[in-house]
Amino acid sequence: MSLESNDPSSTMVLVVRSDLKLSSGKLVAQTGHAAVEVVLKARKSELSLLTRWREEGARKISLKIPDENALKRLFEDAKDAGLVTYLVKDAGHTEIPPGTLTVVGILGPKRAVDALVGELPLL
Amino acid sequence: MSLESNDPSSTMVLVVRSDLKLSSGKLVAQTGHAAVEVVLKARKSELSLLTRWREEGARKISLKIPDENALKRLFEDAKDAGLVTYLVKDAGHTEIPPGTLTVVGILGPKRAVDALVGELPLL
Repeated sequence: MSLESNDPSSTMVLVVRSDLKLSSGKLVAQTGHAAVEVVLKARKSELSLLTRWREEGARKISLKIPDENALKRLFEDAKDAGLVTYLVKDAGHTEIPPGTLTVVGILGPKRAVDALVGELPLL
Repeated sequence: MSLESNDPSSTMVLVVRSDLKLSSGKLVAQTGHAAVEVVLKARKSELSLLTRWREEGARKISLKIPDENALKRLFEDAKDAGLVTYLVKDAGHTEIPPGTLTVVGILGPKRAVDALVGELPLL
């Protein structure tokens, strides 16, 4: 089934672990990485969703999530829901240990994304 | 001339206006937009540079620049240097007036990018 279904609007969320207390520079790098990888994935598997999202203004919302377990769970739930998703693992050159999971990016129909992240606070 | 030339390494910089004092959420959305648009542009015009950049770990550095004039100048200089660049104009739904220029994203050989932004402080 295509992700388009009956939902006319689409959104991207960038969900950041708040327990890491990333600096602004690190935050920009990690969320930027998630956004880029989600878009490149969507080009392959969900091109019409991606096109629509860009035409609608490429809405991006950033949210925070308390810890690594919650981040992993969200990533699995987004995959199970068939959404385009990417989990960022930091290379660890600065600030945090290598392999730290930092951000999940999700692109999909707004209603489906909201159902997953509706409870999370804005960054 | 291809941007590859003799420079083996590549980088992306995301340069943010510091005078706007963007919130973290806005910062993530604006820089994410720049990163995505630069990558989509590079897919068309500089695919081998883009591929190499991703293979090298997709380095992203965020920098700050004092005001709109300096941001515009950097954008023009990056274009003149033949680098892949994108200037974000905010849709203005929140925080700042519509049409505000917020971020410049640049992707290119590290040496060429450094020559343009080497004086700018980290975000």
